[in-house]
Amino acid sequence: THWLSCMACSSLGAFPALSPLPLARAHGKSFAHRSDLRQAKRILVKLGSAVVTRGDECGLALGRLASIVEQVAMLQNQGREMMIVTSGAVAFGKQRLRHEILLSQSVRQALHSGQNQLKDMSLPVLEARACAAAGQSGLMALYEAMFTQYSTCTAQILVTNLDFHDDQKRRNLNSTLHELLRMNIVPIINTNDAVVPPPEPNSDLQGVNVISIKDNDSLAARLAVEMRADLLIALSDVEGLYDSPPGSDDAKLLDTFYPGDQHSITYGTKSRVGIGGMEAKVKAALWALQGGTSVVIANGTHPKVTGHVITDIVEGKKVGTFFSEVKPAGPTVEQQTEMARSAGRTLASLEPEQRSEIICALADLLTERKDEILSANKKDMEPCANQTIFSPLNLSIGLRQIAVSSQDSVGRVLRRTRVANNLELEQITVPIGVLLVIFESRPDCLPQVSALAIASGNALLLKGGKEAANTNRILHELAQEALSIHGVKDAIQLVSTREEVEDLCRLEKMIDLIIPRGSSQLVRDIQRAAKGIPVLGHSEGICHVYVDHEASVDKAIKIIRDSKCDYPAACNAMETLLVHRELLRTPLFDQIIDMLRTEHVKIHAGPKFASYLTFSPSEVKSLRTEYGDLECCIEVVDSMTEAVDHIHKYGSSHTDVIVTENEDTAEQFLQQLDSACVFWNASSRFADGYRFGLGAEVGISTARIHARGPVGLDGLLTTKWVLRGEGHTAADFSEQGSMTYLHENLPVAQVLPGRRTTS
Amino acid sequence: THWLSCMACSSLGAFPALSPLPLARAHGKSFAHRSDLRQAKRILVKLGSAVVTRGDECGLALGRLASIVEQVAMLQNQGREMMIVTSGAVAFGKQRLRHEILLSQSVRQALHSGQNQLKDMSLPVLEARACAAAGQSGLMALYEAMFTQYSTCTAQILVTNLDFHDDQKRRNLNSTLHELLRMNIVPIINTNDAVVPPPEPNSDLQGVNVISIKDNDSLAARLAVEMRADLLIALSDVEGLYDSPPGSDDAKLLDTFYPGDQHSITYGTKSRVGIGGMEAKVKAALWALQGGTSVVIANGTHPKVTGHVITDIVEGKKVGTFFSEVKPAGPTVEQQTEMARSAGRTLASLEPEQRSEIICALADLLTERKDEILSANKKDMEPCANQTIFSPLNLSIGLRQIAVSSQDSVGRVLRRTRVANNLELEQITVPIGVLLVIFESRPDCLPQVSALAIASGNALLLKGGKEAANTNRILHELAQEALSIHGVKDAIQLVSTREEVEDLCRLEKMIDLIIPRGSSQLVRDIQRAAKGIPVLGHSEGICHVYVDHEASVDKAIKIIRDSKCDYPAACNAMETLLVHRELLRTPLFDQIIDMLRTEHVKIHAGPKFASYLTFSPSEVKSLRTEYGDLECCIEVVDSMTEAVDHIHKYGSSHTDVIVTENEDTAEQFLQQLDSACVFWNASSRFADGYRFGLGAEVGISTARIHARGPVGLDGLLTTKWVLRGEGHTAADFSEQGSMTYLHENLPVAQVLPGRRTTS
Repeated sequence: THWLSCMACSSLGAFPALSPLPLARAHGKSFAHRSDLRQAKRILVKLGSAVVTRGDECGLALGRLASIVEQVAMLQNQGREMMIVTSGAVAFGKQRLRHEILLSQSVRQALHSGQNQLKDMSLPVLEARACAAAGQSGLMALYEAMFTQYSTCTAQILVTNLDFHDDQKRRNLNSTLHELLRMNIVPIINTNDAVVPPPEPNSDLQGVNVISIKDNDSLAARLAVEMRADLLIALSDVEGLYDSPPGSDDAKLLDTFYPGDQHSITYGTKSRVGIGGMEAKVKAALWALQGGTSVVIANGTHPKVTGHVITDIVEGKKVGTFFSEVKPAGPTVEQQTEMARSAGRTLASLEPEQRSEIICALADLLTERKDEILSANKKDMEPCANQTIFSPLNLSIGLRQIAVSSQDSVGRVLRRTRVANNLELEQITVPIGVLLVIFESRPDCLPQVSALAIASGNALLLKGGKEAANTNRILHELAQEALSIHGVKDAIQLVSTREEVEDLCRLEKMIDLIIPRGSSQLVRDIQRAAKGIPVLGHSEGICHVYVDHEASVDKAIKIIRDSKCDYPAACNAMETLLVHRELLRTPLFDQIIDMLRTEHVKIHAGPKFASYLTFSPSEVKSLRTEYGDLECCIEVVDSMTEAVDHIHKYGSSHTDVIVTENEDTAEQFLQQLDSACVFWNASSRFADGYRFGLGAEVGISTARIHARGPVGLDGLLTTKWVLRGEGHTAADFSEQGSMTYLHENLPVAQVLPGRRTTS
Repeated sequence: THWLSCMACSSLGAFPALSPLPLARAHGKSFAHRSDLRQAKRILVKLGSAVVTRGDECGLALGRLASIVEQVAMLQNQGREMMIVTSGAVAFGKQRLRHEILLSQSVRQALHSGQNQLKDMSLPVLEARACAAAGQSGLMALYEAMFTQYSTCTAQILVTNLDFHDDQKRRNLNSTLHELLRMNIVPIINTNDAVVPPPEPNSDLQGVNVISIKDNDSLAARLAVEMRADLLIALSDVEGLYDSPPGSDDAKLLDTFYPGDQHSITYGTKSRVGIGGMEAKVKAALWALQGGTSVVIANGTHPKVTGHVITDIVEGKKVGTFFSEVKPAGPTVEQQTEMARSAGRTLASLEPEQRSEIICALADLLTERKDEILSANKKDMEPCANQTIFSPLNLSIGLRQIAVSSQDSVGRVLRRTRVANNLELEQITVPIGVLLVIFESRPDCLPQVSALAIASGNALLLKGGKEAANTNRILHELAQEALSIHGVKDAIQLVSTREEVEDLCRLEKMIDLIIPRGSSQLVRDIQRAAKGIPVLGHSEGICHVYVDHEASVDKAIKIIRDSKCDYPAACNAMETLLVHRELLRTPLFDQIIDMLRTEHVKIHAGPKFASYLTFSPSEVKSLRTEYGDLECCIEVVDSMTEAVDHIHKYGSSHTDVIVTENEDTAEQFLQQLDSACVFWNASSRFADGYRFGLGAEVGISTARIHARGPVGLDGLLTTKWVLRGEGHTAADFSEQGSMTYLHENLPVAQVLPGRRTTS
C-alpha cells in the first residue's frame, strides 16, 4: 500500500497541472538579476504573522491567505517546487480559545447580571504557546481545504531551530521534504511552538504574547539554504528595505540590495514594523544569500498587490527589495533618471546656439561613424532579416532641420505684462523636465528623439527594444559624445533592456512625460500602466472621409484612394467612408466602389448602407473599428450634419475630411466637427508633423489638453512665470496700500531676455 | 440548555461588533435612491455559481469567497442582518468526487500501463445532484471556518422553490430565519439539490450539468420578499443591465433601472452570461422590487472590485444596476453630460459677441435678483453662521471683466502655414469640451466658473456642496436663464448633491477636464479618483523665500511678512524661509526673527539651522511641510546655488522668491530654478491669476503640461488644425508626384476666419 498511496497522492497533486516549465537551473549561486527569477524552480514562501493575521483584530486574513494559496498553487502547477513557512497558528488559536473562555465566562456572568453585560467583559491574556497548539490543527485544516480547491496536496511539518543543530534530525528533515517535493506536495512548515521556550513578554498583537518573529525569519533562511531553494520570498507588512528610516524626507525603497552596500543603510529603532524589525530580516536574508538562495523581502499585506505579489516577484517585476550578490556595472534606472535631470538642467541653461551645436555634432557623428552603426544594425537584423534598412545619412539631414528649429524654442517670451510700476511679469517657454520615450524596434527613432529633447532642453530616458539593442547602444554613445561638447553628456540615458516598461511607468515624480513611439497597442499598454505620469500619444485613429453630394468626382476618388491606400496601417488612414445618400445610385458612387475594388480594399457595410442594398457586403461588427489594413467601412448619411453626428459618435477625434465643392457646407463642417484635424478637400494622410511643417514630429496626440494633433517641438515645452519687482507686496495693493495694478501688455522682445549661462 | 446555547451563540456572534448603526427603517417599500441603501438593515446577498467558482476550472474561487465573507461579516458587525443565498455545492462536490473517481481509476490504469499515463484519462461526467450532495457539507464547513475568523456564527438552510408553495413550510422557514437573525447568526441558504428534479442537460461548467441558475435567482427573490429584506444584492459575472446587448456599439450599462422603462431594454439571446441569462435575473429582480425589496445586480467576479463590491453597494456607490420604482424627476448625470456637450457645441459655434452677451446677462441677473440670491444664501447659512458674506454685486463686476476677455478666446488663429500651393493650414483655438468643476461650500464660485466656461465655449457640469445647495440652485437657474438668450440653456448643468464625487470622476470619455476648486485635500482626493480624466489643480504649495546675503533689509522684511502673513492658508504663502549663512549673526537676521515673533509666526528649525544655534526652536519633522498657518520653517544655505538645490529637492515647484540686490545672482536664480513661478524681490502672494492680469483665474496648476502656474481663460482652450485644399493627396508629394512642400508661414489675420453661425 505504500507504493499505491504515494502514486495516488502524486497523481492527485498533478491533476490540473499545465505542462511543466523547462526549469532545470542547478543550484549553487543566487541569481544576479530580477529577471532571472523566472528561472527559479524551488521557491520557499515565508508568511509573517502580519500577513496571515488581519492586524489589530487577530483573526486570520482569509482573503489574503486565499490569494497567496492561489498563487502558490499556480506556480506549483507550472512545475515549480513550492514550500511555505507560515505563521498564524497563534492567531488562529487565540480566536478559538477566546471563544471557549468567553463561553464559560458569559454563562457565569449572565447568571449574575442578566444577559446584556457581555460587551464589557475583560478578555483574559492568553499564553502564546497554548494558542499556537490550539490553532495549529485548525490552521492546517484551512490550508488543506484551500489547496484542495487547486487540486494540490499539502503536508504539515513542525520544526524548531534546534532541529537544525542535530545532524541526524537535519538529514531526516531534509529527506522528508525532498520526498514531499518529489511527490508534488506543498510542505507547510511552522515552528513547533509548543516545545519552544516561553516567549519574551512583548505583546504585539492585542493581549497575546507573540512568538518572536525572528524565529520564523531565521527558520525560513535555514530551510531555504538546507533545501537548496533558488528563491526565498519573505512576506511581511513592510515594503522592503529603505536606505533611511521610512517616513523621513529622503527615504527611498531599495529595489535591489547588494551586501557590500550594507553601510549605506540606516537602521531605525523605534518602529515596530519599520527598520527595527528589518535588521533581523536582513540578517536572515543575507545568510540565505550567502548560502546561494536569492531573497526578496516584500509587503504581503498591501490590498492592491497581494493578489499577485508572489507571481509578480517570480516574473521579475520590481516588488519589494531583491537581494543580489552581483552588483551590476552601470547605475540603476533611478540613478540614471537623477543624472539625466541634473544634466538636463544644465542643458536647459545653455545658449540656444550651443544646443544647436550639439545636434549638429550628432548629425556629423551619424555620417562619420556610419559603418560602425550599420555593422551594429546588421548584427541586430540577423535573426529577422526583413527589417527596414537603416539610413544614417537621411537621419543626419533630419537632425540638421531640428537644429535650426531649436534656435527659438527654450526661453522664448510669450507674454510680458507691466503689473505695476517697476513690477514686470514675463511668461517664458521652458523644458518640461525629464521625458521617457519608449520605442519599438526601429532604432532611427533614437537620434530623432534625442535631437528633439536637446532642442527643447529636456532630459531624456530612452527605452528601446531588445531586437535593436546593438544599434541603440552605438547610437546612444554618439548622442552622449555630442552632448559632451558642452558638458551635458548625462542628459540622455539609455535604459537597460532588462527594465520592464511597467516598472518605468511607475517612476512617478521622477519622470514628467512619457512618449510611446510604436504600435497603438504599445500606446494603450503604456497609458494603462502610467499612473500619475502624463502620456503623449494617440491610442486610436478612426478617421472618416465624408463625400458630400456636391463633391467633385476627381477630388473624391483621389482623396479616398490616398486616405485609405497610401499607407493603410497609419493612424491617419481612413477607416470609414461616409457617403451622402443622394450619391448612392450615381456614377460617382460606382467609380468609388470600382476604385476600392481595384485597390483590393475589402468593404464592410454600415447598417444604413446595408439596408439600401439588395446584396450587401458583410455588415460591420462595430462602426468604431480601426482596420489598419486594406479594409474600410462604408456608411450612408442624409446630410453633412448627420455626417458630423456620426463622426462625433463613432470617431476618435483624430482626423476627418469633407469632400465638397460647396464652401458653405465645408466651412460648417470644419467649424462644427470636434476633431484634432479637420480637412476640406485634402487627404487625411496630411495629418503629420512633417507635412504640417512643424519640423520634427514628436507624435500625434488625441488628448484634448496640452497638445492636440501632430505635435512639434512646442509639445515638449511648458512655461514659467518670471516676476521682477523692487520689494512689492500684495499688501501694497490692498485698500490701505499705496499701489494699483496696471496690467499693461508690453511688446514681446525679440532678444531672449534674462538668459545667462551658469558657468 | 436551549436558553443557554442560544444566549451563548448570540454573544459569540456579537463579540467584536462595533456599536450597531441606528438602522430602524420599516420595511414596506423599496428605496428610491442608491444613497438610501445606507439605511438598509436586512440584506440578502445572492452568490451565483459564476461568483463562487473559478470559471473554467470549477474549483471554488476561494479568494473571492473570502472577501465576500469579510464584507458580509463587517456589515453584520455594523448591526445589519445579513443573509446569504449561495451556489457552489456542485462545484465543491465535483472537485471532491473527481478525486475519488480518479483515485480508483488511476490504480486500475496504473496496473495496466505503468504510472505515466494519468494525464490522458478521460474524466467521467458527474451528475450534478450527486455533486451537490457530496459538496454541500464541505461548502458549509468552509463558510463556517471563514465566518469564524470574524467571530460570526452561521447556520445552514436547505430549501426548494416548492417549499414556498406550502404555507405551513413557509411559516416554519420564516420563523426559523427570524430566530437566526434575532440571534445574530448569518443564515446560509442553498437549494436542496438532492431532492429537485434532474437538471436540463445543458452542460455549462465543463463536464457537469448545472442546476438551472433560475432556481437560485427566484429563490433569492422569494426569500428577500418573504423575509421583508430591505435590499437584495445579486452577484454574478455580469456588470448589470445594459440598454442593448453588451458589446454592441451603443450598449450602455444602466446605473438605475425603472420598471416602467422595460421596453427600452433589448434582450439578446446568444450569450450564456449576457443578456440572455439576464432576462431571468431581471424577472426575479422586478418580482422582489414589487414585493418592496430594493435590488442591485452586480458583477461579483471582477478582480478589481470584488473586495468591496458589497460594501460599495451598501454605501450607495454606483456599482452594477440598481432597481428603483421611483423615477427621479430630472435627468441622470449621464444625460446631463450629453445635454451639456450638445448645447456646448452650439455655444462654441456662437459669435464671440454672443458669448459676451450671455455673460453680461448673467451679471445683470445677479444684481437684479440679488434679494432672491441672498435669501437663499441665508437659508444655507443658518446651520453654520460664520460663513463668508456673499456679494452678488462684486461678483457681477468680475463677470463683466470676463465678458471682455471672452472676445478673442475661441477661434483665435495661432498659426497659418501655406503647406503647398492652394493647401493652407490653420491652427485655431477651440474649447476643450465638457468641464467638470467640483467646488466646496463657497457658492460665489458658481457664477465665476460659469462665466469662464461660457467665455471659452465649454460645456460645464457643476458639483457644489450640500451646505450651499439653495444658493447654488438659484445661481444655476440664473446662469441657464442667461444662456437661454442664445438658445444654449443646457450648456451648464448643476449635478445633484446626491451624486458622489467619486462616481463623477469615473465618467471617462464623457468629461474632458476636471477642475477642483477648494482645499488641497479635495484636489488630492479628486486626482486620486479621476482615472483617465485630466485634473487641473495644484495639490501642494510649498513655497520658499530665499534671502541672499546681498539682500536689502527693508525689502526682505516686507516680502517675508507679506509672503507668510498676508493669508497664511493660501497655497502661495511662504512655508520655508531660506537664509544665506552669512546673514546669521547680522542685525537683518534678528530683525526677521523679531518681525516673525511680532506677527505670531511659529518657527521651526531646519536641521542645518538648528546646528548653528545653542538653543533652537523645535526641529522640523519634514522639510516638505505645507503649514498653511502662521508657522514656517527656517533653514540656512551656503549660497544661491544651494538654495536652488534645496528648493528642487523639497519644494513643490509652485512659487519661489529670491530677495537680493545683486542682479546677476537674481537672474541666475530665476533661470536655474524650475518652478511655475519664480520671483525676484516680490512677495510670493503675487502668484495669482487676477494679480498676473490674466483676468479671471481658473486655478493654479502645478502640473508641468498644458497649463502651469496661475491659469486664465487660455487653460480652458485647446486647438484644432484646419486644412483647406483642392483635392491634394500625400501621393502628390511623393518622388513620382508633381508637388513640393512650401511650409511658408503666413501672417495671422486679426479677423477670425472661417467662422459662421450654424443657424
